[in-house]
Amino acid sequence: MEKYANDLKKLGNNIRLHRERAGLSQEALGFKADLHRTYISQLELGQRNPSYTTLCKLANALNVSIYNLIGK
Amino acid sequence: MEKYANDLKKLGNNIRLHRERAGLSQEALGFKADLHRTYISQLELGQRNPSYTTLCKLANALNVSIYNLIGK
Repeated sequence: MEKYANDLKKLGNNIRLHRERAGLSQEALGFKADLHRTYISQLELGQRNPSYTTLCKLANALNVSIYNLIGK
Repeated sequence: MEKYANDLKKLGNNIRLHRERAGLSQEALGFKADLHRTYISQLELGQRNPSYTTLCKLANALNVSIYNLIGK
């Protein structure tokens, strides 16, 4: 996963950006996306490697497309 | 994962589309992306839920952006 550490950090930053834009706490986003708050926190730090369906859940909970969430 | 079965099928179809456009067999794509051929086959059938870094590997191997790979 080392090779993609930067990609995961960029993804984490985008998730935080959209969460803050939506005015949600990590806990509130976790509740909406059926994910644990700690997992959201680790994701935003680039410490987790989410699956495609987890990205779909987050995009739905944040009301953005998965494109925006990935933000390449 | 049931709820996102369609999303995974669409993703699988996109991966196959880009693989065929690149003129690669499943085995060749697997070799380039450091993934097993069977995994590629199951992905294309929507039977697997790839991680974000696996999507990055596939996009790199197919020389497309992750946006195109997801194809929403």
